[in-house]
Amino acid sequence: MICWGWQCGGDGFSSALVAQIDELASFSDSPAPSVTRVLYSDRDVQARRYIKGIMKQLGLSVREDAVGNIFGRWVGSEAELGAVATGSHVDAIPFSGKYDGVVGVLGALEAISVLQRSGFQPKRSLEVIMFTSEEPTRFGISCLGSRLMAGSKELVQSLKRTVDNHNVSFVDAADSAGYKIHPDDLHNVFLNQDAYFAFIELHIEQGPILEKEGIPIGIVTAIAAPASIKVEFEGNGGHAGAVLMPARNDVGLAAAELALAVEKHVLESGSIDTVGTVGILQLHPGAINSIPSKSHLEIDVRDVDEKRRNDVIEKVHKSAIDISKIRGVELSEFKIINQDPPALSDKSVINAMEFAAKQLSLEYKLMISRAYHDSLFMARISPMGMIFIPCYKGYSHKPEEYASPEDMANGVQMLALTMAKLSLE
Amino acid sequence: MICWGWQCGGDGFSSALVAQIDELASFSDSPAPSVTRVLYSDRDVQARRYIKGIMKQLGLSVREDAVGNIFGRWVGSEAELGAVATGSHVDAIPFSGKYDGVVGVLGALEAISVLQRSGFQPKRSLEVIMFTSEEPTRFGISCLGSRLMAGSKELVQSLKRTVDNHNVSFVDAADSAGYKIHPDDLHNVFLNQDAYFAFIELHIEQGPILEKEGIPIGIVTAIAAPASIKVEFEGNGGHAGAVLMPARNDVGLAAAELALAVEKHVLESGSIDTVGTVGILQLHPGAINSIPSKSHLEIDVRDVDEKRRNDVIEKVHKSAIDISKIRGVELSEFKIINQDPPALSDKSVINAMEFAAKQLSLEYKLMISRAYHDSLFMARISPMGMIFIPCYKGYSHKPEEYASPEDMANGVQMLALTMAKLSLE
Repeated sequence: MICWGWQCGGDGFSSALVAQIDELASFSDSPAPSVTRVLYSDRDVQARRYIKGIMKQLGLSVREDAVGNIFGRWVGSEAELGAVATGSHVDAIPFSGKYDGVVGVLGALEAISVLQRSGFQPKRSLEVIMFTSEEPTRFGISCLGSRLMAGSKELVQSLKRTVDNHNVSFVDAADSAGYKIHPDDLHNVFLNQDAYFAFIELHIEQGPILEKEGIPIGIVTAIAAPASIKVEFEGNGGHAGAVLMPARNDVGLAAAELALAVEKHVLESGSIDTVGTVGILQLHPGAINSIPSKSHLEIDVRDVDEKRRNDVIEKVHKSAIDISKIRGVELSEFKIINQDPPALSDKSVINAMEFAAKQLSLEYKLMISRAYHDSLFMARISPMGMIFIPCYKGYSHKPEEYASPEDMANGVQMLALTMAKLSLE
Repeated sequence: MICWGWQCGGDGFSSALVAQIDELASFSDSPAPSVTRVLYSDRDVQARRYIKGIMKQLGLSVREDAVGNIFGRWVGSEAELGAVATGSHVDAIPFSGKYDGVVGVLGALEAISVLQRSGFQPKRSLEVIMFTSEEPTRFGISCLGSRLMAGSKELVQSLKRTVDNHNVSFVDAADSAGYKIHPDDLHNVFLNQDAYFAFIELHIEQGPILEKEGIPIGIVTAIAAPASIKVEFEGNGGHAGAVLMPARNDVGLAAAELALAVEKHVLESGSIDTVGTVGILQLHPGAINSIPSKSHLEIDVRDVDEKRRNDVIEKVHKSAIDISKIRGVELSEFKIINQDPPALSDKSVINAMEFAAKQLSLEYKLMISRAYHDSLFMARISPMGMIFIPCYKGYSHKPEEYASPEDMANGVQMLALTMAKLSLE
């Protein structure tokens, strides 16, 4: 058995990590304790500078690609071999928390630091990646950076036309953050299939299971299959006082019915693993004395079973058509934005994670990730695995999100040991 | 019978009025043909300057009160008598049209011009009023200017604390438009009960009846009683992938259910005159992968029968409580913002309007206003009446809103003659 000297080195690193997490959380467009850090905003640029600063302190060789995926590499003794990579994201949806993604970036850098302090010498290079825009906030596209790295040609096409809610194009937004993109640069973001020997992501669970069961580590065996849908209804609108009820075709009520239909169809699936959410519902013109003339919904449906998830989507589509007929409104858009297949963790990475947990005497649970992550796309170009740590009540995407220093320390040690083991293979 | 010389003067004035309406519509924060002109915005300030400019061209004596109600007076030969006033508003809700309110301001100024050109000499002074913020867009308070003029002490109190959605206070917003308000100035906006001998408002119908029946003039006998309500639900929110369905308390779905309950309770009233609308429904944080943790609705309920309307509000309240219990969310606000009684037109003003219609050989219909107007509040301090003209398909509060030059010309002539008649009484 290999002796990992740094294992006996105390846990001073957890307080350094906590301080970094708090510092990063201060780059926010909403007041603490909430965090809002949207792609290519000034705060996002600040966070990028901060991450690159730590990478440089650690002596990593730093590279950025055309869309701002950031890579910090510790070159191994056999630099020509595929590297062992880890990483996550630091963008944050409006009014969310400070751990989602961040633990997988700052924690990964802490894992590198721990290995360096222990005197470890990697054979395969080790690399920390900060992915651009895991969250879909600005352009409606989740995992933008990793999706591109995995070679999504459709995304390259659509990014040329993509605009945000203020009609700012993707290219102009990137430019404002200092990334001068020519449309053909986007292909250069694609990575080779043999770029990485393994990819591991450390993340808070974003669910309540580990905390409830008192287990410090989750080893992810599969990531649930997500899909997202945009829907728009259009109607005549009109004055809230003057248009009598029989003359109305109220698209706000059509949207309300569809939101409830999503819940109904999800529950009909009969499986606890099926979830569906209407996180965005907007009415136009949005005045108290005006009947809505346009409504816009964005729907998220997920399942570990792809077919069951797609059945729900079909039912939601049928409901949208039925509602539009009954209410006399137009279903002007029903667009499936993405409908990704699920991903399985690779046996080689699971083995390394189980080895690490046993070495560290940490109890672990093999589990499914119901949230999706950059790992879903990294799995297309590399053997993939994920390490989960518990979070308070399973809360995520809100200010109450919390992971304890102890749980983060366990996650960092798990990640360090897993990477070290894979580096020597 | 009085001979109204100007009646024979052709209708050149309608094209001048159309040109002014188009010019005013260009002061908009949304692209044509829509109009967006929100209280104290730069566009609102431009519009105010434009209206005062026309008043000065007509030789009217111009006065502004503390909140920006604008008065243009043609002083009569017996200036000590109560004046005959008319007017409406020029603020426009987001993405609305160019006739709502505007016809009653620019049309009133055209009526003054017509009377001046005809050589008419008023005995009682004639006055055109441009009311501040008939629309509730910015501060959630409808008919802000006329409500204050009518002496609303509650409004004076609440305005000291009122902020808009960007947390800008009413006082600061007014300041940015050039109105330096000290909280005690607001009382100075109150008018005496005998300030006006009569008030008449010219307005598009905002409903389909006149157009459908081919009748050019509506004489309003009563204004329906409006009420508006703000509702907020709060729940735990969370990640759209990770929180399983049984663990959710989704306030977006609570809001959807309440919106549909409003429709249900309105239809249960059994009267065609009961209407209810959810024009605003907002979800927080508003991200596709986040379960809503706060939802906000604004509900508008109206009826010509005050008790029947209030019964609907009670049922909506009960539904909100039931929904919050069933879904395990908190009903953190259920606030009735206003619950105004209906207003009746005064017999003296109706008589003058009927006289004018007969003089002009215009067919007219006695009707109810289902939309409410500044007249609702002017009725508290003055005998009140309203003149309606047809509008295309009854459309209002959207870009397709339209009134024909002929219908506007009829309205202007009706208003001019009604004011002239009352001025001599």
